This record gives sequence, structure tokens and C-alpha cells, in this order.
Amino acid sequence: MKVNMMHGAGGAVFAELLGQTLTRYKNNNAGGIGLESLDDGAVIPFEDKNIVFTTDSHVVRPLFFPGGDIGRISVCGTANDLAMMGGRPVALSCAMIIEEGFDIEVLEKIVSSMDEALGECGASIVTGDTKVLEKGAIDGIVINTAGIGIVEKPVRDSGLLVGDVIIVSGTIGDHGLAVMTAREGFDLGEQIMSDVAPVWGLVEKAMNAGEIHAMKDPTRGGFSNAINEMAEKSGVQVRIEEEALPIRQNVRSASELLGINPLDVANEGKVVMGVRAEDAESVLSAIRSHKYGKDAAIIGRVVEGKSVVMETSIGGERFIEAPVGDPVPRVC
Amino acid sequence: MKVNMMHGAGGAVFAELLGQTLTRYKNNNAGGIGLESLDDGAVIPFEDKNIVFTTDSHVVRPLFFPGGDIGRISVCGTANDLAMMGGRPVALSCAMIIEEGFDIEVLEKIVSSMDEALGECGASIVTGDTKVLEKGAIDGIVINTAGIGIVEKPVRDSGLLVGDVIIVSGTIGDHGLAVMTAREGFDLGEQIMSDVAPVWGLVEKAMNAGEIHAMKDPTRGGFSNAINEMAEKSGVQVRIEEEALPIRQNVRSASELLGINPLDVANEGKVVMGVRAEDAESVLSAIRSHKYGKDAAIIGRVVEGKSVVMETSIGGERFIEAPVGDPVPRVC
Repeated sequence: MKVNMMHGAGGAVFAELLGQTLTRYKNNNAGGIGLESLDDGAVIPFEDKNIVFTTDSHVVRPLFFPGGDIGRISVCGTANDLAMMGGRPVALSCAMIIEEGFDIEVLEKIVSSMDEALGECGASIVTGDTKVLEKGAIDGIVINTAGIGIVEKPVRDSGLLVGDVIIVSGTIGDHGLAVMTAREGFDLGEQIMSDVAPVWGLVEKAMNAGEIHAMKDPTRGGFSNAINEMAEKSGVQVRIEEEALPIRQNVRSASELLGINPLDVANEGKVVMGVRAEDAESVLSAIRSHKYGKDAAIIGRVVEGKSVVMETSIGGERFIEAPVGDPVPRVC
Repeated sequence: MKVNMMHGAGGAVFAELLGQTLTRYKNNNAGGIGLESLDDGAVIPFEDKNIVFTTDSHVVRPLFFPGGDIGRISVCGTANDLAMMGGRPVALSCAMIIEEGFDIEVLEKIVSSMDEALGECGASIVTGDTKVLEKGAIDGIVINTAGIGIVEKPVRDSGLLVGDVIIVSGTIGDHGLAVMTAREGFDLGEQIMSDVAPVWGLVEKAMNAGEIHAMKDPTRGGFSNAINEMAEKSGVQVRIEEEALPIRQNVRSASELLGINPLDVANEGKVVMGVRAEDAESVLSAIRSHKYGKDAAIIGRVVEGKSVVMETSIGGERFIEAPVGDPVPRVC
């Protein structure tokens, strides 16, 4: 059997490859939360605190897109995974694989962009590796970052409780549609901008404002995948109100034009949270007080049962399902 | 200016690219040893201990070679960088980038090999990422691992002191020549086997037996590069006795045939140490008592001055210089 493109998407087919091959390590846990939990990161207990640890390789095309670039996404992607565990990002590694002939000026721009994003996160790149491959062995550049964060009490993606309120920290679908329209060269009037940004500041405010039971960032596979993983791992049903979902008008238009569900594409500066109902308003206010959280909204609630149900604006109901593949390959 | 293959080798041209571009991060240190020191890993002080953190991408070809494979090297490469800082390997991340069409059975073999090496190190893979790229965008598979270790008192590559004795933990050049001869299909009678192995066990024994002032693993750029970096960073001269250098006969023969200096090619299971002279014999015994240290030898000493000087078997002297490029590309 061969690996195919569906295996690279954050959906159901990918889960199969994971289950059959990539999570077969017997040595998969260092005493806390390990690979077996398939959360946004791992947790390693250390003294009286916890180290959060995560990694991501970045292969986005084009390298520079409206609102961001591969450098910014390489820092934010990993820092945000740490934040999803409740972890303050501290240190990142940076491993680049570069194709012979790659322009050093472009490389410098990428490094500058990474550095700027690091400054925003309050984290540093402390260790690195560089490999150069012969022409044709790699498409330009790929960047891996791994990250270390610190947390006292980790937050899981599996912690949703019946009665919780679901909050999203802003508009959905921006990054995926920004990359897609940039790639296709669509002129949609108002340019769609990627939302790529570090969310730790916003998450920290939210955690100080109330009890967060579960968090996940809706990256590959989009909101649909994130919310389904949260519901399934938590053993609950999530009900989402369609009218409450914040989606930009230009994202809606581009989605219709391309036949893509904006809930299925990656976001790179957003958080989906399950919050204790009594704390929902104060957490919402805290998120909205952050520059990356102005469009935050309460979008649903957690009930007994399973699956994710969308209550539509005309009073109907349908399932939100995790996409089987990724409608936008190489989105991050 | 373009990136070229010389930029990917562990030598002088690579150092230029590093200095000009890849180490330009202002956010480059999390309070301990950061990117600026270009050591085998970074150190982050945490409570009363230190976290060691490192990363490596692995692009070796062929994927399976005599004595090892890309999976084993992916675990050992990173675990050994932790060990070089004196760090006990605890947790690794694994990020794979896979080409569409890659054989899942081969992937399973790689995962099994990684798992076996993890068991040997006493470390775990706790977090991961997988990207699948379209056919032609990547040559088969590349594997990045990052690693976290724990150390009380970090060891540096820059800690050589005048009077120290230089010890190497075994034969030199095995990995580079094993890969090279496998690639070229040479039949040299006795097959050269890669030395790829985790060295933490050996390093731990050595550290318990005496005072280790500096350590480095002679990977890309080989022994020549490692010993020059150690000498330069420490501000000392290292004198090596040619006759004392342990090199296998089949490695010597292959080197001559290929016109490659065995001191310039990668090793993946070896350590070069600077040891306090009084402790040299007990450290040597400790290393030799480990299965990966049977051929360990005292090969030189540290004096005042600069550069690395080889005292040849016929009573002459010449410099050992860091290779400008890497004679064996894609060796790890």
C-alpha cells in the first residue's frame, strides 16, 4: 500500500495512517501526555511543573501569501500548539531543508519574519539544523520547528464537559482561503488575508478569565476537524449555531466560488474553546480585549451524546463532519 | 546569491551561510545556552536543573544502508546531540515529510527501527507531525526529530583546557564510508558497517569516571570538523597522534579507493572528548566497558595555541583542517 495525498490531510484517511503505522511506537510517553493521545502537544512532568513539547513541518505554497509567509507560520504553528495545551511558549528549534539554488535573499526574509513572530510570542529559536539537498530533491524549502512550553495545569482537547459553552476566537476559514485564492490568482475585490498569528497572549487572558476545559486550534482540516476531534475524544455532542459562526463576507464568497466549505480549511491564528458556562461571558470579553480576538463569538454548547450538530439558520439540523481529505493541500 | 550544495556540508562554507543568515535571530536564547553558541544543542535553565534541546533533519540515502537506516539515524542523531551536552535523552518529537506514493511497508520498517533505537536510549517519541507532498516535491521521505534531555551541569564543545587529553570513543569514518560504498555498489570484500548507535550509555559511564571538559560528536564534516570546532571555540591547540587514531582497515582501503579522507566523513555513534589528564585512564576504561566503546583510544592532547596539528607516524606535522564541503552529501 502506498501513501497518498489523502494521508496528508487532517482528516479521516490520515487518522487511518496514524493508527496503522505512525503511532505504533512502544516508546511513546515520557510520563505525562504522550503520542498515544494525539493531542496538539505532549506533556512531560518536570519537578513541580510540566514541559509541553510539540513539532510541525511547514510546506506551505506560495512561500509568501497575503497576510503572512512560511516563516511566520513556522513560528506561529508551533507556538500555537503549545498554547493549546495551556503552555507558555519558551523555546523553539528550527530545522530547514533547502534546495540547491534557493535564493539567499528570500531566506533572509523568511528568517526576519520568523524573528518578528518570535518577538510577538516572547519565545526564542535556540537551536537549529540546516540541510541542503540537490536540485529536484525538495521543492524549494521546508521548515520544521519544534517547541517547548511551560504549564502548571495542562489543557487537553478531550476535556469538554456537558454544559460547556463553545467559543471561537475569531473568523473562520481566512488562512485556507487566503492561500487558495492567492494560488489561483483570483481577484475577489477585497483581498482575503491569512489570520496567521501567535495566540498565546489571547489564550493567557482567556485562562485568567475563567475555566477552560478544552482547547484546539483549527488548522489542517479546519474547524470541522477540530470540533469533531474535541467532541469525539471528550465523549460528548457539540451543537453549533450556524448563525453565530463568524465568517468574513469575502471568505464566504470565495468559498462559494471554489466549492469549498470554509469550515473545512485551515486557520492559523484561531482557538476553539470549551468553557465552563458561568465563565463564558468573562472569557469572551477577555478574548475580545486582545487584538487577535476582536471577532470572538460564542458559537455553541456541549450536550450529552456524540457527533457535532449544526443548527441551521432556517431551523434545520445537520452534522458537521471532519473532512475526509484536505481541500487545500500544502496550506501550512 | 543562491544556496549551493557546499552550504549543506558541515564545513567552512556552511559556517558562512550560518553567520550571514541563519543565526540572525534576535530572539535566540531562552536564558541559558542559545543559538548564538552553535553547540550541539541549547540549554534552558528550569527550576534547579537544565533542559537540553536540539533538532536534526535526516535525509540520508539510501534509506537502508549496511548497519542502519534513516529511522535509526533519526533517533540516534538527536539523542546523541543531547548526550554531547551531558543530557540524558528523555523525549523526542518526530516530524515526517513523505512523498505521495511512498510504500507504507517501508514506512513501517522505519518506524520499527526508530522504536528499537528509542528503547536502547531510554527515550520516547511523544509528539509528531506528518505532511504528505505531491509526487516530485520531495525525494521519498525526510524525518526531523527534536529532542529534550535533562542535565544538571551541561558540557560544552568549547570547554577544552590546556593539559586535557583527547579521547575518541571508537573507530573513525565508518558511517560515511558505509553509506558511500553502499551507494556506489563497491564490493570491498568485508562490508563496511555504519556505526550508527545511541551513545548516552557510554557518555554516562564516562561522566561518572572523570571530569569531561568538552564533548562533540563527529557527524557532518567528520572528526576533522568536530576537533577544529572544539579547538577554535576553546581557544587552544589540539595535537593528534596519527598512529593513535583508530581506523578500520576496510575503511582505510575504501577511503584510498575513493580519494576521501576518513577523518572528513560522518560518524553516527562516536564521541570526541576532552578529559582532565588525571582522569584519562579511568574515563578510557569506562568507555571501553561499554559495547559501543570497545575501540576507544587516547588520541591527543590540548596545548596552548590554536589549530589542530597532526603528528604523523613518520615524525612530521601537518594541520588537520575542517573540510570545506562534505565529500559525502546526504550522509545523515
